[in-house]
Amino acid sequence: MTITAPEVDIPDQPGVETVRRLAERCSNWGRWGPEDQLGTLNHILERDVVAASGLVRTGRVFSLAIPLDENGPQTGGFGRFNPIHLMIRDGNAAATGTVVRDFYGGRDRWIRGTDDLLILPLQSGTQWDSLAHIVFENRIYNGYDATSVGSKGALRNDIATARDRVVGRGVLLDVARSRGRPWLEPGEPIHAADLEACVRSQGVTVRRGDIVLIRTGQIAQCRDAGSWGTYAGGPAPGLALDTAPWIFDRELAAVASDTWGLEVLPNETADVFQPLHIILIVHMGLLMGEIFDLEALAEDCAADGRYEFLFTAPPLPITGGVGSPVNPLAIR
Amino acid sequence: MTITAPEVDIPDQPGVETVRRLAERCSNWGRWGPEDQLGTLNHILERDVVAASGLVRTGRVFSLAIPLDENGPQTGGFGRFNPIHLMIRDGNAAATGTVVRDFYGGRDRWIRGTDDLLILPLQSGTQWDSLAHIVFENRIYNGYDATSVGSKGALRNDIATARDRVVGRGVLLDVARSRGRPWLEPGEPIHAADLEACVRSQGVTVRRGDIVLIRTGQIAQCRDAGSWGTYAGGPAPGLALDTAPWIFDRELAAVASDTWGLEVLPNETADVFQPLHIILIVHMGLLMGEIFDLEALAEDCAADGRYEFLFTAPPLPITGGVGSPVNPLAIR
Amino acid sequence: MTITAPEVDIPDQPGVETVRRLAERCSNWGRWGPEDQLGTLNHILERDVVAASGLVRTGRVFSLAIPLDENGPQTGGFGRFNPIHLMIRDGNAAATGTVVRDFYGGRDRWIRGTDDLLILPLQSGTQWDSLAHIVFENRIYNGYDATSVGSKGALRNDIATARDRVVGRGVLLDVARSRGRPWLEPGEPIHAADLEACVRSQGVTVRRGDIVLIRTGQIAQCRDAGSWGTYAGGPAPGLALDTAPWIFDRELAAVASDTWGLEVLPNETADVFQPLHIILIVHMGLLMGEIFDLEALAEDCAADGRYEFLFTAPPLPITGGVGSPVNPLAIR
Amino acid sequence: MTITAPEVDIPDQPGVETVRRLAERCSNWGRWGPEDQLGTLNHILERDVVAASGLVRTGRVFSLAIPLDENGPQTGGFGRFNPIHLMIRDGNAAATGTVVRDFYGGRDRWIRGTDDLLILPLQSGTQWDSLAHIVFENRIYNGYDATSVGSKGALRNDIATARDRVVGRGVLLDVARSRGRPWLEPGEPIHAADLEACVRSQGVTVRRGDIVLIRTGQIAQCRDAGSWGTYAGGPAPGLALDTAPWIFDRELAAVASDTWGLEVLPNETADVFQPLHIILIVHMGLLMGEIFDLEALAEDCAADGRYEFLFTAPPLPITGGVGSPVNPLAIR
Repeated sequence: MTITAPEVDIPDQPGVETVRRLAERCSNWGRWGPEDQLGTLNHILERDVVAASGLVRTGRVFSLAIPLDENGPQTGGFGRFNPIHLMIRDGNAAATGTVVRDFYGGRDRWIRGTDDLLILPLQSGTQWDSLAHIVFENRIYNGYDATSVGSKGALRNDIATARDRVVGRGVLLDVARSRGRPWLEPGEPIHAADLEACVRSQGVTVRRGDIVLIRTGQIAQCRDAGSWGTYAGGPAPGLALDTAPWIFDRELAAVASDTWGLEVLPNETADVFQPLHIILIVHMGLLMGEIFDLEALAEDCAADGRYEFLFTAPPLPITGGVGSPVNPLAIR
Repeated sequence: MTITAPEVDIPDQPGVETVRRLAERCSNWGRWGPEDQLGTLNHILERDVVAASGLVRTGRVFSLAIPLDENGPQTGGFGRFNPIHLMIRDGNAAATGTVVRDFYGGRDRWIRGTDDLLILPLQSGTQWDSLAHIVFENRIYNGYDATSVGSKGALRNDIATARDRVVGRGVLLDVARSRGRPWLEPGEPIHAADLEACVRSQGVTVRRGDIVLIRTGQIAQCRDAGSWGTYAGGPAPGLALDTAPWIFDRELAAVASDTWGLEVLPNETADVFQPLHIILIVHMGLLMGEIFDLEALAEDCAADGRYEFLFTAPPLPITGGVGSPVNPLAIR
Repeated sequence: MTITAPEVDIPDQPGVETVRRLAERCSNWGRWGPEDQLGTLNHILERDVVAASGLVRTGRVFSLAIPLDENGPQTGGFGRFNPIHLMIRDGNAAATGTVVRDFYGGRDRWIRGTDDLLILPLQSGTQWDSLAHIVFENRIYNGYDATSVGSKGALRNDIATARDRVVGRGVLLDVARSRGRPWLEPGEPIHAADLEACVRSQGVTVRRGDIVLIRTGQIAQCRDAGSWGTYAGGPAPGLALDTAPWIFDRELAAVASDTWGLEVLPNETADVFQPLHIILIVHMGLLMGEIFDLEALAEDCAADGRYEFLFTAPPLPITGGVGSPVNPLAIR
Repeated sequence: MTITAPEVDIPDQPGVETVRRLAERCSNWGRWGPEDQLGTLNHILERDVVAASGLVRTGRVFSLAIPLDENGPQTGGFGRFNPIHLMIRDGNAAATGTVVRDFYGGRDRWIRGTDDLLILPLQSGTQWDSLAHIVFENRIYNGYDATSVGSKGALRNDIATARDRVVGRGVLLDVARSRGRPWLEPGEPIHAADLEACVRSQGVTVRRGDIVLIRTGQIAQCRDAGSWGTYAGGPAPGLALDTAPWIFDRELAAVASDTWGLEVLPNETADVFQPLHIILIVHMGLLMGEIFDLEALAEDCAADGRYEFLFTAPPLPITGGVGSPVNPLAIR
């Protein structure tokens, strides 16, 4: 069987050539000028922000971030580890009074403060990938050279460029629920037709400038198992190759999911790892979100049948950052 | 001259006794139950979120965070330093191909990724203070013991409790502009009467559940000088003691400013350092924001005379965190 | 059966009272004055250093440190993790030339450098415990208050005090080999009588000022198993309570072993964790070394029957440090 | 005037061509085989270690490391900063008892421990440069490719290779004192003839396998000024180009100094920064030490006129490390 996406045939056993064709099919290089660093965030217009604000009906706010702490999913892959939280001074130092000696020069002026510090791999939890996160054939989004991302971080396409752009209409596509299941299994692909079916079953539309959140239920599965297991870096349900044109044609601004890498793993391409990262980030210039906790939001959407909301998820303005932790909000 | 706040006289040379009286006057301990950890964020109701969404008219979005990088304002005080950004692997490793050797087990599957890491004092840039950040007489907000904030962070009142609560109506009080000046000088106090005058001159109201942003212009002054100088920890314009009842009576949800510590420095109290931190954080349970860059927002508000907007600024859900970096958005 | 150490009976099921009596029996508080911070390192005299130098016969040098890297034994216990090594700039940046752009202001002057950074829990690998590492009943060695060790580290008894003192006569006691076994099993105690038997079988003497290295073989066991397993923080062979007077009476300067904590685990005391840490560090003021890799040294000593050598293992002069990584050398 | 080193003329205004000729003149590539990673440490033979031990006469031990703390010399250049020391748990947590809650699972078993952590740029204080620290024309010592030093550190020539090799005869050349001055001024060169003059005036010899410590007095000058000033990365007294053959011909094992970079700065070569780093590290394969505090040692040597001693300075076995902090000991 050969699935046909518009203009690109995806063979049964796709490889790098298919990735190249899809990348070309879905490329936004140059679309917003040779200096563009925003990619598909350009799809969000100011009037879309106004319209999205009109979607707030109940005032319920959902935080889509997992906790940043030592109990996160990382196990060392790709050099990532769970955040390390350390106190610079704490309430014990306040209780014993040594904070006055150690920080206030020995002069007690009644106040005592606490301070802390994080050692934080920027891809360790709920996060946005910047357009400098993936390199293919020595290029990052919009054709910039790979070496634009050097020892001091990304001089092009860093995550700080998106600092005031990730506000708009959010749409939840609860693929697991639309199939009547609590979660999809690791390795289970989501095809373009599956997204279409979900859209139809939810009675929602997907439009230019939308931020689409795709729920596979894998976080629910981990919670049910009582362990992250191989969640970070291991097999996962997720998007198949033929969703790239679907995303491109709808002019989505961003796509995020509740898995570590958005796309199905093992990948369809035996010779290419994470081919959608290449197509979506390098060529489409799509803001990609990972490890979004969609469980409570999905419950609330299912309860009233409304799958659209105001969505805000600005990255931290980390100069040169190739990713950013984020606390995304769905405001309903 | 003695300034009179309702029920509490503030003498010319106030001291810890005045701080205690104001703290008692403005205390919210127990108001939302003995287990409350949210403080004044309780003032924001779901209907306020809906109403605030209606303030979005132009769709312009303003990010109020300064960049997180080595050029920030910190100079070592209180153990704080500017964020340290390090690459786990970068575009050079992609260009030379060593990323395959070092991270992909030597098997080249076409993709190359970059990753990075921050060493981040949580109070180093634009940030929220949690209700565990300040201790007075061995207590934090709602009466919890100082030792609730231990080596592993805050077991009570950590910043993660606010993860889905900092959405509402934002109001900018551009005190500098209302006085016809580019900025207030370090050491210049802002009294309750000044806030009132600003409110009147801007033709805005301030209501229960609002997040109020107070512009002194100090960041503009630093930019004009070309240096942060002693911005972090040094003299600053800011709130005077008599603003505590003003904030309390209006039932504000949060207050932030463009200085390192919100309150005027040198403080009015010779014997107490940062007395408003004690009153507002420990006793009122107010979410306090610092180092908010209000310059572009202020320009935009002045241009159309509207000083209210939808405001979103969720902290990162840092388990045990006594502060959090944040990228606050004013959505107009 | 009751094992009798001089003056202190150790019952079958010892508890905190036994620990207190042994601590008193072996206390050096005040022995070198009320300001002393060196403890048993005072036992090493300059003439001992000269004498120890005379033990160098073959010129073979043995490094007793395990590698500092991500493959170390730590698994998170006590907040410890394996060292994290990050490049500030690397050879890839040299190869692509971006180091000139990123670090040399764009001016190429032929040289390219690499730099790196460690995030290093000071107890993560081969290490010395400072005399500020353990607190018992609110006191550290020589009676200083626990709060001497505050947010900024140890103001008393920090590891930097030993910076020029850990040079002397080293003696290996290969307890495993003296019993004809490759290693002792986790939980297997080493009693004073065992040390005596080892001393006799090796034909070595133990004297005032010696640094004694006790080999259990546990690192060999881990290598044989191909995994650290629960090495860090788990069951281990090691010293029993009755060795405290043995160490005290011989006036040893330091004792180290090839386990994570020197003493037998599970401990003999059901109610006290690591009782020897209390007796030896807090009261005796003994420099204690952990995770020393004694395998190659033990082979060499067994080959020629000489178990004494020049030993140098200065800690890094970490101001306030309560421990220090160390690369101990046995010079034969 | 043209200074003549054996076989290489050094013109008045030397440039990269002179550097190349000196590098070739002094190259050890291949000398110890194509797989060698030790460089000049090969000059130390076991019998040299035995002989060096015989130099210990008084038993006085000198630590040559500056303290590792926030008061070090770094000011941000090359991405280096002073070590950051943080407590994982401290004596305050012991005093309040919260350590039991936070680390011991709530079960009090009498003991309380403290632990700490360093964030440590490996070149921030007293340190060895590994043979992977400098790249010239895409090669590191012994001809390995620059990309041998990747995101995970040095796969060739890392500092861990020297873990058991830095023991031998140390010789102090107190150049400042031999000129009758407290210190040399920044920018003041030390030529081969100056080293010869110092050797003669001290009545010492310099031989194959020696570790030579060169005192300029710059640390004394900083102490006198009460500030590090531009010590790290700024102008410094130090070795001139013509010392390279002097070092090479004497077959020294290592050279260290009390400046940040050993060589004179500004450099003699207008077009090449730190040319001796290229010649000595990349081509000679010399272990180079920096920021050695030689003040107390120099006093002691001057007092009895003996400038030789047993020297031990093993790096930490940091896998992949391109440098290592070290606490060097001169044992007299």
